[in-house]
Amino acid sequence: MLSTRSINLVTRPLSAVNAIRLSSSSSKIQASAMVYSNYGKPSEVLSIHKHYLPELKPEDVHIRFLAAPINPADCNQVEGAYPIKPPFTNALGSHDPVAVGGNEGVAEIIAAGEQVKGFKVGDKVIMANAGKGTWRTHAALPATDVQLLPGFNQDVSLVHAATLTVNPSTAYRMLKDFTLLQQGDFIIQNGANSAVGQSVIQLANAWGLKTINVVRDRPNLDELRQYLTSLGATHIITEEELSKRETRSKLKEWLNGRKLRLALNCVGGKNATELGRYLDHEGKHVTYGAMAKQPMQVPAAPLIFKNISFHGFWVSRWTDTHSAQERESMLADLIDLIKQKKLKEPIWEKVSWKVNAPEEETLKTFREAVDKGITGYGKGKQILVFDE
Amino acid sequence: MLSTRSINLVTRPLSAVNAIRLSSSSSKIQASAMVYSNYGKPSEVLSIHKHYLPELKPEDVHIRFLAAPINPADCNQVEGAYPIKPPFTNALGSHDPVAVGGNEGVAEIIAAGEQVKGFKVGDKVIMANAGKGTWRTHAALPATDVQLLPGFNQDVSLVHAATLTVNPSTAYRMLKDFTLLQQGDFIIQNGANSAVGQSVIQLANAWGLKTINVVRDRPNLDELRQYLTSLGATHIITEEELSKRETRSKLKEWLNGRKLRLALNCVGGKNATELGRYLDHEGKHVTYGAMAKQPMQVPAAPLIFKNISFHGFWVSRWTDTHSAQERESMLADLIDLIKQKKLKEPIWEKVSWKVNAPEEETLKTFREAVDKGITGYGKGKQILVFDE
Repeated sequence: MLSTRSINLVTRPLSAVNAIRLSSSSSKIQASAMVYSNYGKPSEVLSIHKHYLPELKPEDVHIRFLAAPINPADCNQVEGAYPIKPPFTNALGSHDPVAVGGNEGVAEIIAAGEQVKGFKVGDKVIMANAGKGTWRTHAALPATDVQLLPGFNQDVSLVHAATLTVNPSTAYRMLKDFTLLQQGDFIIQNGANSAVGQSVIQLANAWGLKTINVVRDRPNLDELRQYLTSLGATHIITEEELSKRETRSKLKEWLNGRKLRLALNCVGGKNATELGRYLDHEGKHVTYGAMAKQPMQVPAAPLIFKNISFHGFWVSRWTDTHSAQERESMLADLIDLIKQKKLKEPIWEKVSWKVNAPEEETLKTFREAVDKGITGYGKGKQILVFDE
Repeated sequence: MLSTRSINLVTRPLSAVNAIRLSSSSSKIQASAMVYSNYGKPSEVLSIHKHYLPELKPEDVHIRFLAAPINPADCNQVEGAYPIKPPFTNALGSHDPVAVGGNEGVAEIIAAGEQVKGFKVGDKVIMANAGKGTWRTHAALPATDVQLLPGFNQDVSLVHAATLTVNPSTAYRMLKDFTLLQQGDFIIQNGANSAVGQSVIQLANAWGLKTINVVRDRPNLDELRQYLTSLGATHIITEEELSKRETRSKLKEWLNGRKLRLALNCVGGKNATELGRYLDHEGKHVTYGAMAKQPMQVPAAPLIFKNISFHGFWVSRWTDTHSAQERESMLADLIDLIKQKKLKEPIWEKVSWKVNAPEEETLKTFREAVDKGITGYGKGKQILVFDE
């Protein structure tokens, strides 16, 4: 059941595989993985480990990755500052126990064990859950660790597929799960230019909701305004403007009698507190990030007298506590929106990972990218694209 | 249908009623009320207004108050710093429009209009909702503004009856409505010596729950420890101890594998943040007061990764958004616990309001009491007791 493709891979010049042990239990599929053996700054602790995939087990699949983002949370994970900590193991035949970086990505099935049902060679799959390591050319995994993308076709790019389970899924759940929103209702969010923020704008727009989008002041503010408006943002306001007293009447005008019952926060600190100030009775304040690395202040009065509540959202927990069917239904919705051109790719920057390129070159490119990935800024989301 | 009692009331010496207008639409029932015509410090803006109750309307009841507490929220109301703001009116025949202070209390029906059903003269009633004014000797109100106390008998003191709808009801709802607690489960609360805190300890104890009680350090800490332990407190710890690193292992020992999923906060500031730190995954942090008058800091990580959420509770909103049946069922439960001696009277101090005493005397006593009521400290809850 090995594809031609996976056989081609082992016909590479021998020079490239010098460092790799080929044991009797190995397949002939040569893989590279971005690994770390202790926590630290990603650009410092990550290195490439080359190995052969193990022989195909009956319940496993062999996959080759096509694209995988460097999300800020992936970087926190390498730093040891993320609750999902893949164990350091020698499973890949490394000298020191290592973990593979990355949590999200799209891959192609290149071989499926004889007990595997529902997948065939050539199928595009995404990860069924976080923590499995996606910064690698190939992986051997239990088939339960991957899942098909419902409705995936040529209208859905690899970048879309590689980035669907974290950012758009976070936006989708936050808009659906905290309060019942109806057509014409408003939500407010800070960090509106973040990858999740962009998804929020587009999903809200597709669902007939209106958005008040808070961004940091910046030299190219007009450009950002234009871009967010092109995605469907209703109103855009800077953090500084939001904190002004007169903004209250401006927001009142915008809302025109509608209640503001959902605030989405990925910034924290003072700005998160500000968002809460504009929420109406029964409003929900949902935190999914902390770019400012500052706690927010929560006064007692809105909690007690306006029944505003403060929540957090973490898509990995959502995935772990909901059925595969629920996730599939969400992904199908998202893919529908992509096909209808209502959900665009995030702004992204290609990080090329050529399977046959010298190790040093791949590592250099990756390290530059990962430093941009930590901040979440750079020219856009850093996305590993695996080319041969 | 006038009781003997209400007839007796109008046989007072004329000297006491000199200042009162007796119009053709008045009854012969003479009343005094603690009123304010503008917001400010209660001991400064409150004054006594004497008047006759209006003639009994078909849908009204005439009541005479037996006992009414001075709750901190009542004082905030007089200060204008409370969301429930009884309108200033001339309904009591005052020169300036006034509002009557107080929200909670127990009264006796002294007359019931011909259309009133379900009440008879002599029935003890409490207020069906907040904002009706209980700091007065008598009132004429629509019968819908009062309700019977289910199961009320001689085992239930007037102080109990007068203070049931705010503090014990708050404790009851907070323990019931935010997370499902099972026998042996722990909760943590600060301000454990507050009136609500004492109710929490007793209700938790009656329901087989365990409490970790945080109090401020103080000279008579041992005495307080003893008292709270006598109410059923499982553990008592000072704010200072709670903030120490080694407390984590102590709490772990206390919990002995149980998860801590409910924190009750009436303090705010740093201590409220501390409580949150000890909550387990899915924990609920509920604020019902802000004694320290400081907002709490909420870091992002517990919101996102532990799914801890921050809520507020306000018993007036609960009453407004729930049926009379639900409230009655809660009050019946509370009264059962009182009869079983599982819920004691709060520690309280009598504020005597003698119906026939000179106005100046009543006002002086009241002003002293209200200043203690603002802080919520003093020697206990300040409770107006109406004697003839």
